[in-house]
Amino acid sequence: MQRFALIGAGFIGTVHAANLAADPDVDFAVVYDIDTARATALASKYGARAVTSLGEVFDPAAIDAVFIGSSTDTHAEHLRAAADAGLAVMVEKPIAPSLAEAHEVVAYVEKSGVPANLDFNRRYDRDHAALQRVVASGGVGDVELVQMSSRGPSLPPVEYLKVSGGQMRDQTVHFFDLLRWITAQDPVSVAVTGSALVDPSIASFGDVDTSVATLTLPSGALVQIDSVRRTGYGYDERIEVMGSTGLVESRRQRSGNVAVYQGDGILLDPLHAGWFERVQPTYAAALRAFVAALEADTPVPAPLRDGLAAQAIAEAATLALQSGLTETIRYRNLDWRPPRRPREPHRQ
Amino acid sequence: MQRFALIGAGFIGTVHAANLAADPDVDFAVVYDIDTARATALASKYGARAVTSLGEVFDPAAIDAVFIGSSTDTHAEHLRAAADAGLAVMVEKPIAPSLAEAHEVVAYVEKSGVPANLDFNRRYDRDHAALQRVVASGGVGDVELVQMSSRGPSLPPVEYLKVSGGQMRDQTVHFFDLLRWITAQDPVSVAVTGSALVDPSIASFGDVDTSVATLTLPSGALVQIDSVRRTGYGYDERIEVMGSTGLVESRRQRSGNVAVYQGDGILLDPLHAGWFERVQPTYAAALRAFVAALEADTPVPAPLRDGLAAQAIAEAATLALQSGLTETIRYRNLDWRPPRRPREPHRQ
Amino acid sequence: MQRFALIGAGFIGTVHAANLAADPDVDFAVVYDIDTARATALASKYGARAVTSLGEVFDPAAIDAVFIGSSTDTHAEHLRAAADAGLAVMVEKPIAPSLAEAHEVVAYVEKSGVPANLDFNRRYDRDHAALQRVVASGGVGDVELVQMSSRGPSLPPVEYLKVSGGQMRDQTVHFFDLLRWITAQDPVSVAVTGSALVDPSIASFGDVDTSVATLTLPSGALVQIDSVRRTGYGYDERIEVMGSTGLVESRRQRSGNVAVYQGDGILLDPLHAGWFERVQPTYAAALRAFVAALEADTPVPAPLRDGLAAQAIAEAATLALQSGLTETIRYRNLDWRPPRRPREPHRQ
Amino acid sequence: MQRFALIGAGFIGTVHAANLAADPDVDFAVVYDIDTARATALASKYGARAVTSLGEVFDPAAIDAVFIGSSTDTHAEHLRAAADAGLAVMVEKPIAPSLAEAHEVVAYVEKSGVPANLDFNRRYDRDHAALQRVVASGGVGDVELVQMSSRGPSLPPVEYLKVSGGQMRDQTVHFFDLLRWITAQDPVSVAVTGSALVDPSIASFGDVDTSVATLTLPSGALVQIDSVRRTGYGYDERIEVMGSTGLVESRRQRSGNVAVYQGDGILLDPLHAGWFERVQPTYAAALRAFVAALEADTPVPAPLRDGLAAQAIAEAATLALQSGLTETIRYRNLDWRPPRRPREPHRQ
Repeated sequence: MQRFALIGAGFIGTVHAANLAADPDVDFAVVYDIDTARATALASKYGARAVTSLGEVFDPAAIDAVFIGSSTDTHAEHLRAAADAGLAVMVEKPIAPSLAEAHEVVAYVEKSGVPANLDFNRRYDRDHAALQRVVASGGVGDVELVQMSSRGPSLPPVEYLKVSGGQMRDQTVHFFDLLRWITAQDPVSVAVTGSALVDPSIASFGDVDTSVATLTLPSGALVQIDSVRRTGYGYDERIEVMGSTGLVESRRQRSGNVAVYQGDGILLDPLHAGWFERVQPTYAAALRAFVAALEADTPVPAPLRDGLAAQAIAEAATLALQSGLTETIRYRNLDWRPPRRPREPHRQ
Repeated sequence: MQRFALIGAGFIGTVHAANLAADPDVDFAVVYDIDTARATALASKYGARAVTSLGEVFDPAAIDAVFIGSSTDTHAEHLRAAADAGLAVMVEKPIAPSLAEAHEVVAYVEKSGVPANLDFNRRYDRDHAALQRVVASGGVGDVELVQMSSRGPSLPPVEYLKVSGGQMRDQTVHFFDLLRWITAQDPVSVAVTGSALVDPSIASFGDVDTSVATLTLPSGALVQIDSVRRTGYGYDERIEVMGSTGLVESRRQRSGNVAVYQGDGILLDPLHAGWFERVQPTYAAALRAFVAALEADTPVPAPLRDGLAAQAIAEAATLALQSGLTETIRYRNLDWRPPRRPREPHRQ
Repeated sequence: MQRFALIGAGFIGTVHAANLAADPDVDFAVVYDIDTARATALASKYGARAVTSLGEVFDPAAIDAVFIGSSTDTHAEHLRAAADAGLAVMVEKPIAPSLAEAHEVVAYVEKSGVPANLDFNRRYDRDHAALQRVVASGGVGDVELVQMSSRGPSLPPVEYLKVSGGQMRDQTVHFFDLLRWITAQDPVSVAVTGSALVDPSIASFGDVDTSVATLTLPSGALVQIDSVRRTGYGYDERIEVMGSTGLVESRRQRSGNVAVYQGDGILLDPLHAGWFERVQPTYAAALRAFVAALEADTPVPAPLRDGLAAQAIAEAATLALQSGLTETIRYRNLDWRPPRRPREPHRQ
Repeated sequence: MQRFALIGAGFIGTVHAANLAADPDVDFAVVYDIDTARATALASKYGARAVTSLGEVFDPAAIDAVFIGSSTDTHAEHLRAAADAGLAVMVEKPIAPSLAEAHEVVAYVEKSGVPANLDFNRRYDRDHAALQRVVASGGVGDVELVQMSSRGPSLPPVEYLKVSGGQMRDQTVHFFDLLRWITAQDPVSVAVTGSALVDPSIASFGDVDTSVATLTLPSGALVQIDSVRRTGYGYDERIEVMGSTGLVESRRQRSGNVAVYQGDGILLDPLHAGWFERVQPTYAAALRAFVAALEADTPVPAPLRDGLAAQAIAEAATLALQSGLTETIRYRNLDWRPPRRPREPHRQ
């Protein structure tokens, strides 16, 4: 049984709270939020205790693990505190707003030796996970072409976009991680073309709302990722991996499985209205995997370092969008090893 | 090369003519129709000769095979003439309006020994044929449940329905044949429930426009066939066969493969507007199979006797609709043998 | 906030317990089970109190509503106790093993005036519910043909089947309720044909494992329900309703949305392995609707009487299976009214 | 009625011959091929006349229109001959192996004023055409993102590839035309990344077998086209167009519509085995449109100039593949106008 403290009682914090309460190996002990009332309300719903000081969070006597679900600019600080207290820690992406700072934090936490895990929840999407298993087991042969669509239903507020770091760092970064995880390869280069089609004012601060990225894998395989901020037809996420012997596709998910037949066509249920409808179940599964690793004393499923790699790709992609050139992705200082499984040399 | 005469230059005759002209092993020689102008127009389009007497059709010196595509009440007479002339013959369903007369004609033709084939074109539907192969090869194990939907888009004229013999004889009969062909079993009993929902006036002459039939196969397997005269959403034909190890389905066919995604749903192309859009390719394939049998001097694929069996089921179904009881299907006088392959005794 | 006692801590009881704990308007107070250890374990997981006497369940001072999730033969007794104590009550199907006893219990409970609700959870299937809304809103016009498939993946133990009351009462009864709910009509007659194909020994106690039922609605519309105990390919549940202007289908649900393309075909994820995978979310939704009615002081969504109607159809269907005849369904003594919305006279 | 001469009796010539024979407004008069025996065999099958001199093809007294279906290096010569003879002409793609020569030929033919039409048959794909109509009618709003997949089942012989001009000119060019036709925009720039994954020896002559192209439209909309020589799972062609209000997709086409349900998955029919299975019906439709324009004396549907534009894009794409840079597409000397409909300025 792992005694958990949760930092952050906002929207996503409430999701984590419900999952912590339901997990059979978790004792959901403590909630902290800078908004004390919010912490109290959330804690009381699940029989946890609201605390008002971080000292009660990072307390090895009462807590085994901390879940950091607070705002991005606090992640680094809380990660260091967990390392100092010797507590296991799970943290929302990203590790830190800047890659340089993220590097420092990861080095610090790794030195401490505490189990530290990123919440790469999309890896736990039922269908993406099945696709990854097909690819990893050789079900489509050697990977040759990967296509990913990341398309949100509606434009976030421009005020949010201004401070988001840009589409590559804010949106596409999730798919850079999925790409590494699915192919077990680190892409070597990236080119990006983008436009501000939905709201041209986005261009005024150097960002885009519609973009296509092309990446190359060490094996020569090619990758296309399209990122769209506003579809008009719902949340559209899709992955396909073509290999030397077949293709596997994690298809668009509809919100239901009803069909109405009329003379002018057959109307199926639309895609999910928003991203949360699709990804909700992934949070509990990601937590489950972390807790299981703690219970079994095995390596965490998504070490912080994986986040550095995704972030490095996002940095190169941001540069490529500005330069109009194909940019090499630099994982330097990472002392990098392939993420999971050895690759055979490409067949001749 | 088989020299063919075609009887009938109406709508379906023009379909047969195009297929006769395109078949590589057919010399499309002669067209006959009681409407001479119609025969002439059709013949000239394909370089055939229009004739005005049946003597020029049933002429062994000039003709090897006759395709009877004229009206139902003439089939028997033309079949006998082909038998007398020693010509191979392919005929549209049914053999004759009454089962008794059909029996007589079949006996007459069989005695002559000429190759005589019914145009059971639906057996050549691309998807139904694939389903039949799956079933015949044991791909779903022993058949346990069969479901068939036969649904036309719009009500035929009531004047037509009055003389059609009723829904079982006119519409469902095609599926009685498909059932025998797919399962290689002759159903033993049938019950039918029906209503005149589309046009209550149909009830005044004892017919229905919407019905469900339940049949039992010798193995104990169950069959459901629904027959609908007017769907309002296009031509809807579907077959599924559940066996002891799996299920195979010949799905509804859409008229295209385009999808439009909007916020309120995903609109697929509708089903075919009419039956002809779905079945058109089957006519050429059915002809091809007959011609191939003639060329190879092998048994014809759908001997007339198969038509008697389907007609016998339709008679019992018509009786069942009237009686409200489960009726035994009587194939007597047919000296019947299972149509194609031996059945093992049902496993214990 | 409704204080709930739960009776029954078996498999389905644990499902109800999780839902009671998660429902925002429920105070999950008490668990009772004849197996005290089981009750204690379940109660402790959710911070509820295990009790050892029914007096602590039916205690108006501490409890507002009782959820009866114990074995079928105890439902009647607990329903009467809830009525006596003036407590709201939600009960698993069926009300009682025999229709006669069910009648008595319903009369008793109705006289008491307590809110009493059957757990017709399948009505809360996401897709079936959407289909029902399409039908109720006239989206397919007047109902003309209904088809339902109820197919379990594997044969239950024969020992269970022997005491189950037969396929109609045990399995098909759920679809008799769905039929009434979807069409807002009470069927007038039923005919059933069945076979013991999976395990012929089932025939020795008068039951079947594969059956097709044909029902007629007051409007003349026709209904087909097939019930299968063992598919070999997973849990297969499907409903389609054809009306005068279109068709709506609640499709087979697959366990995932992944496709693998190979040269010999495209492999999609299979259907759910078992019934529970499909219906799990329906239990929470059914509970939610009951609690919402209690909170709003409005009529319960599925009054006990609805269960009598489904049970009456199952009785007639059982008789029809034995007699081989079309049986009239007798709702007598029910002082019956159409379940939900007025019907216009059938259009001429 | 248009009297046609066909040049070329090879594989695709036999397809054209069958379509010429079946078209109601065509008098299929003459066949020419450098292989005289081949011409004779094809002509005799359809009652046409085989000729041995091109003088009998380009003979205004006997012929109204010429269909050029011979090898690519002869197209220019035959086009000039048709212009000289004042005959209408339909020609297979491309106009000439080099863009410069194609420019000259088009100028020559345009000066003559004869109706001259390219066989852009893929525009007549049933589903692509429906997609184009949806886009053109504003059914998805302003185009923002286009994705096309062009994937053949198996690698053509390396000997063929060596002289093919490269993947962009040989394969992707068809989709450059579809792109212009669907969006009614001429792309302004193109970047291409490619690899020789299937057969590394292809790299030795500067070609690739797997590539992704990114194009930008004048409106800022983005385009992705992937081109694959060998899939391992059949012929895979797919187009989707995302606009400001929705998305339209011309889906992968399967070779049949049968599904087999087993415990481990649902097996659908594979994609078509080859490209011809998908595109066969488009040839007759493309011919039909040309003949209809001749009969009605209206502009031809696909003037030669459209071929120049597609070829200009392919040249820029070939350059981009070599340079690794985004290349501007130069339509110079074409006195270019948007192909079909005016565009409103992009909305603010």
